[in-house]
Amino acid sequence: MPVSFTLVRKDSACSARLGLLHTPHGTVETPIFMPVGTQATVKTMTPEEVRDVGGRLILSNTYHLYLRPGHELVREAGGLHRFMNWSGPILTDSGGFQVFSLGPLRRVSEEGVTFRSHIDGSEHFFSPEKAMEVQLALGSDIAMAFDECAPYPCSREYALEALERTTRWARRSAAAHQSETQGLFGIVQGGTFPDLREKSARELVELDFPGYAIGGLSVGEPKQIMYEMLDHTVEFLPEDKPRYLMGVGSPDCLVEGVVRGIDMFDCVLPTRIARNGSVFTRQGKLVVRNAEYARDFSPLDPTCDCYTCRNYSRAYIRHLIKAGEVLGIRLTTIHNLRFVLNLMEEIKEALRQGEIMEFRDRFLSTYQAV
Amino acid sequence: MPVSFTLVRKDSACSARLGLLHTPHGTVETPIFMPVGTQATVKTMTPEEVRDVGGRLILSNTYHLYLRPGHELVREAGGLHRFMNWSGPILTDSGGFQVFSLGPLRRVSEEGVTFRSHIDGSEHFFSPEKAMEVQLALGSDIAMAFDECAPYPCSREYALEALERTTRWARRSAAAHQSETQGLFGIVQGGTFPDLREKSARELVELDFPGYAIGGLSVGEPKQIMYEMLDHTVEFLPEDKPRYLMGVGSPDCLVEGVVRGIDMFDCVLPTRIARNGSVFTRQGKLVVRNAEYARDFSPLDPTCDCYTCRNYSRAYIRHLIKAGEVLGIRLTTIHNLRFVLNLMEEIKEALRQGEIMEFRDRFLSTYQAV
Repeated sequence: MPVSFTLVRKDSACSARLGLLHTPHGTVETPIFMPVGTQATVKTMTPEEVRDVGGRLILSNTYHLYLRPGHELVREAGGLHRFMNWSGPILTDSGGFQVFSLGPLRRVSEEGVTFRSHIDGSEHFFSPEKAMEVQLALGSDIAMAFDECAPYPCSREYALEALERTTRWARRSAAAHQSETQGLFGIVQGGTFPDLREKSARELVELDFPGYAIGGLSVGEPKQIMYEMLDHTVEFLPEDKPRYLMGVGSPDCLVEGVVRGIDMFDCVLPTRIARNGSVFTRQGKLVVRNAEYARDFSPLDPTCDCYTCRNYSRAYIRHLIKAGEVLGIRLTTIHNLRFVLNLMEEIKEALRQGEIMEFRDRFLSTYQAV
Repeated sequence: MPVSFTLVRKDSACSARLGLLHTPHGTVETPIFMPVGTQATVKTMTPEEVRDVGGRLILSNTYHLYLRPGHELVREAGGLHRFMNWSGPILTDSGGFQVFSLGPLRRVSEEGVTFRSHIDGSEHFFSPEKAMEVQLALGSDIAMAFDECAPYPCSREYALEALERTTRWARRSAAAHQSETQGLFGIVQGGTFPDLREKSARELVELDFPGYAIGGLSVGEPKQIMYEMLDHTVEFLPEDKPRYLMGVGSPDCLVEGVVRGIDMFDCVLPTRIARNGSVFTRQGKLVVRNAEYARDFSPLDPTCDCYTCRNYSRAYIRHLIKAGEVLGIRLTTIHNLRFVLNLMEEIKEALRQGEIMEFRDRFLSTYQAV
């Protein structure tokens, strides 16, 4: 088994757990947040910087790399690890979420999805088999089954159809995926319907994947509904396999997700808002590009241990961002990723101490979520 | 004297020399190339990265910092060193070159220059006195006298007028500049007229600055004319003061400048072409964003010791640049600055060995200048 999971400790007060995820490129502790390297780079950062802020497992996007530079080129380069100089584990998504996000640019059939490139408008076809071929060429440690992600809101009828197709595509993904060096995770769908979430989870678990993702959440629904769906999904997933909540990365959702039994997360949020001049603090989001910080010579977050907070002021970072200087978004990206990854370290420590519920309450008492 | 110079060694075959430039933020070896940090950042880089590639003394732009974030704000921040987290010496230009480059946006009088901001069109006035005030607020180690840089080509009449004004403004700059912690350099003008270069140099030397810059070159004239002007200027400058050729940074011109007795250089060229996807190699410029490098898995320059060349392929860097990823221009910037700064190290070593002319011939025999 190229990818496996060791459950280290279960919390007594909630569904949270500590675990170890074993991959061909090393073992990482869970719960874990995966920085996103969409185009074979975590935007603005070197691999060393990603490691310095605490990144251990990164996500890269199959859709983007298939289109540019092309998976065959990445294979020729010796795989994604070598191409981008990242020696730790990599998870690739299946491309499903991206092609379904293209809206009018895609057509779905039972066979797969025909879509047009957002770069040059050229036509392409993705199927479960194609998604496996591309991810094998990329050489990630963990591949994802090709799924259909239903939008929010959507009818029960559509959600049912999408989840049933997701199960059939998961079966085809598993059949096409023959690899000694890559694990394949299934993706639970079912929209915001508790019984459909249960149905999807049960069908996927029958296929016996080494890990399960929860897809189709954090797509616009209220957070409370997402939390309910987690409760209605996690209980049908096996305890000895990792659970991955796709696309979630706001600090409050990370804490709430862990409490509900999630082991893995990924999200562009920390890096994306950084490029817009917004940063996380223990009090919530701070828009450092705002005029009020022009003469603020304090660090982004006085409690933070990151390179940015140790060396630069809000005033300097605001100046860089207003002036369009790359260093500005480098510094906010470093800070935001460190903030989230440090939060995950504190979460693990709270789990080791058996105090995760206390930690959640303490964190949420100061953190102003948006 | 806040800034002074020690002449360490003169070459016997040409005007080249080894020296030490002493500043309030430390001593640096000359000949030296100064990376440019226009807006209080060497574009895309952290100060640690600038130091890692061999940067020891950086240049920052008075005009840009005066407009944004404002020199008073930088003063409040504790000066430019602290604001941008650079502990080595900093040289600021006078703003003269920038305001004269504004063309129709500026009006010149004996008193100074009225100009409009390129950012918001607001009107401003710069004079020798104002340029001193702003540079003192920035807190650089070396300030430059306010000068008038004539364009190329320009009439003898205009060049004479500009150089005479430059002398009068240099006198006013020196009178206004009262600082125990900042040195002030004069700037030689005179266009491409040998006798005017001599006149300008002689007039400035009378004012006894701790260093002399050569301005108004590398503004569009053929390289051969620039070299001739250097010969006609350097001979009238004192041996015991540093000579700084402004705005020059192409590898062949650095070598030729050193041979003609230049100690200091600055230029945006290495960092600017890096952001366009062009890099220096021992054979000349290479446009790594070109299609021919899509599947080239070798480093930018196999002989280079920089972070980029040790870890990444041309194919990966091309992918990043085509995809608009910031890491791409970070990697090319690191390489180009390292290339130029490593060249300066080789130049110093050749000077120590008494082989600078042999080094020049060897370097120029493979380097294809544009």
